[in-house]
Amino acid sequence: MGHSESELLDVASIREDFPILQREFDGEQVVYLDNAATTQTPEPVVETIADYYRTTNANVHRGLHQLSQEASVAYEDAHDRVAEFIGASGEREEIVFTKNTTESENLVAYAWGLNELGPEDEVVLTEMEHHASLVTWQQIAKRTGATCRYISVQEDGTLDMDHARELITDDTAMVSVVHVSNTLGTVNPVSELADIAHDHDAYIFVDGAQSVPNRPVDVEAIDADFLAFSGHKMAGPTGIGVLYGKKHILEEMEPYLYGGEMIKKVTFEDATWNDLPWKFEAGTPVICQGIALAEACDYLDDIGMERIQRHEQRLADYAMERLVEQNDVETYGPSAGDERGGLVAFNLDSVHAHDLSSILNDSAVAIRAGDHCTQPLHDKLGVAASARASFYVYNTREEVDKLVEAIDDARQLFA
Amino acid sequence: MGHSESELLDVASIREDFPILQREFDGEQVVYLDNAATTQTPEPVVETIADYYRTTNANVHRGLHQLSQEASVAYEDAHDRVAEFIGASGEREEIVFTKNTTESENLVAYAWGLNELGPEDEVVLTEMEHHASLVTWQQIAKRTGATCRYISVQEDGTLDMDHARELITDDTAMVSVVHVSNTLGTVNPVSELADIAHDHDAYIFVDGAQSVPNRPVDVEAIDADFLAFSGHKMAGPTGIGVLYGKKHILEEMEPYLYGGEMIKKVTFEDATWNDLPWKFEAGTPVICQGIALAEACDYLDDIGMERIQRHEQRLADYAMERLVEQNDVETYGPSAGDERGGLVAFNLDSVHAHDLSSILNDSAVAIRAGDHCTQPLHDKLGVAASARASFYVYNTREEVDKLVEAIDDARQLFA
Repeated sequence: MGHSESELLDVASIREDFPILQREFDGEQVVYLDNAATTQTPEPVVETIADYYRTTNANVHRGLHQLSQEASVAYEDAHDRVAEFIGASGEREEIVFTKNTTESENLVAYAWGLNELGPEDEVVLTEMEHHASLVTWQQIAKRTGATCRYISVQEDGTLDMDHARELITDDTAMVSVVHVSNTLGTVNPVSELADIAHDHDAYIFVDGAQSVPNRPVDVEAIDADFLAFSGHKMAGPTGIGVLYGKKHILEEMEPYLYGGEMIKKVTFEDATWNDLPWKFEAGTPVICQGIALAEACDYLDDIGMERIQRHEQRLADYAMERLVEQNDVETYGPSAGDERGGLVAFNLDSVHAHDLSSILNDSAVAIRAGDHCTQPLHDKLGVAASARASFYVYNTREEVDKLVEAIDDARQLFA
Repeated sequence: MGHSESELLDVASIREDFPILQREFDGEQVVYLDNAATTQTPEPVVETIADYYRTTNANVHRGLHQLSQEASVAYEDAHDRVAEFIGASGEREEIVFTKNTTESENLVAYAWGLNELGPEDEVVLTEMEHHASLVTWQQIAKRTGATCRYISVQEDGTLDMDHARELITDDTAMVSVVHVSNTLGTVNPVSELADIAHDHDAYIFVDGAQSVPNRPVDVEAIDADFLAFSGHKMAGPTGIGVLYGKKHILEEMEPYLYGGEMIKKVTFEDATWNDLPWKFEAGTPVICQGIALAEACDYLDDIGMERIQRHEQRLADYAMERLVEQNDVETYGPSAGDERGGLVAFNLDSVHAHDLSSILNDSAVAIRAGDHCTQPLHDKLGVAASARASFYVYNTREEVDKLVEAIDDARQLFA
């Protein structure tokens, strides 16, 4: 600690791009610490969206008129920009725009899993998977007769890698693992898991919803077969998710949604499919959202993903230190100082997480309370819910202090 | 004709809401006649989107803080507003937000069709179905062993209703029919088809992509079991579609996408599902897009859907008259004066539709050329492609004149 934030980021200047951070509730300026649920949207992205509708809006791919050509170039180029953001050398052919991370997970589960899995196959997950991965593979396994297995989470919030090596065998068809846990903040060794999966000819699907927005992610360095993330958690708009897939795998996969744009030739009997990535983008795609996501990539890269990562890590460390000082607070996941994502989940002995969140709201401190879409993990932790503060590029140490002060107030209220 | 447009709509004033219509290409103001592909977005909707990100952006349903509460109320209320727009008395429980019409079709095909169809079942479509319906049911039929049958389109562009009564039998499980053809402009007798389907205990799915944006649609008067449409074709944003379903049917249906928001209880073994409509909205939903679609409904209702319908009908009639005057133009679908949607597809004897569209673009006239996602219908018409001019609330007779003049220029260029 002790480092001034200005060494890393000009947070004051960044905050000017986010007018929502100036909102006040009952005279208190909002302290927005719910970034793992959704991040705020900077002016350049908002302006990109408004400009799109005011100057360029048209349907893409098929139009020969000027507006359609402009919209098509912007939309198609956005795929290349997102590919560059995660280091995918296959460019647009490896980038499918969906509506959210959840749809990206389901796309693979339906298009690959429903066709390829059988009773002899196993899908290996972790105990800290988000419902988007956990429920999806469970249900596809039920349909296909496949079996789901879960890598244990240890006391310190990390994966039991011995257990991982035990579970991942030649029966494993897919390993689906969260990169950074949205509850524990754990950064999982996805590259190591990819090697183990590939040694057994299994694919690895990486849930990057909490990693791609917050740290440099190079999908080829990880050697992920699939990677999924969402625009709205990385300074982009709602309504867009991304599925990265290795080109040769996407080429072999059957389509998922059927309709216009994804076909080549259609008769009354059958159809053939379009080239990548359009084969997986049926119907009018998320045009404006894709263009805005590319702008969000520019915005984040201009700041620098490594600096964003270090900024969030410092805030999380500071929050952990302040919370651990207090005897009645239990935090989950790796300790302060360990590598972790920019979030802290915790519980107060005397106050239920939901009550805590409500009381914090009276001080305009916005955190999340609940199971964070990891119910089985919460069952294992022995709690129904937790409070979670999560940080982004515009948060400050002073906001962490306000969080701790508001928790003090809550404690006194319930004393 | 001869009616002044001002009797119906104050088009000049409406056009002020659409700054994109002021764009010029090589000094020529754009004549945007590609509205069946996507409509333009009025300022109140653009401002709703920008305001959302500047003041309200948060994840919905689960948050206890003020921003999340505001976003949740706006997003959930948007479902009620859309329900009202199409006369769905079940309100939000009957309205699922998807990413586009195509996803709405696939939702029902996967969630209902994949579970309920078998080799003894038949799905009845029409020869004028959009690929979103045609390809989707074909592929789900292939997976389940069901059979697709197609109601014939007659010479005049209308459905052969005798053939419909022949095809729809007790073996029929689903009738999927386009309300207004995006190629022929035909307005299909969906209410009559619903009666026939229901007489045989089949469901009817109505593709409303070209009807809901352009005319009053009362889903209960039609007695549709399902109705699908898109935001971007009705003055709303890209990235949102709607699935209406009768409440008792949606309640019985299995989910489609799995993940957060759509579950009640999750263990490592299984899961139970959330209430309607959230059971069908997995992951972070299309929050901003839903709120903006509700604003688009307000915008259209303020003008009045009946007036919009009459305005478009007059423009289509006028365009048909002007085109039919010319001996070398073939138009498709019902004749001028018959009830039809606000679009005209046609071909010039001497100029391929794609060339025509390119040449028209030189005069800043934006139309669409291609198969309009109805390849099998084009095969039946004996053409590979057609040109299509489609109208919306902001188009004028003068723009139709410019279209005809530009066609004259194209004809001379190819003479």
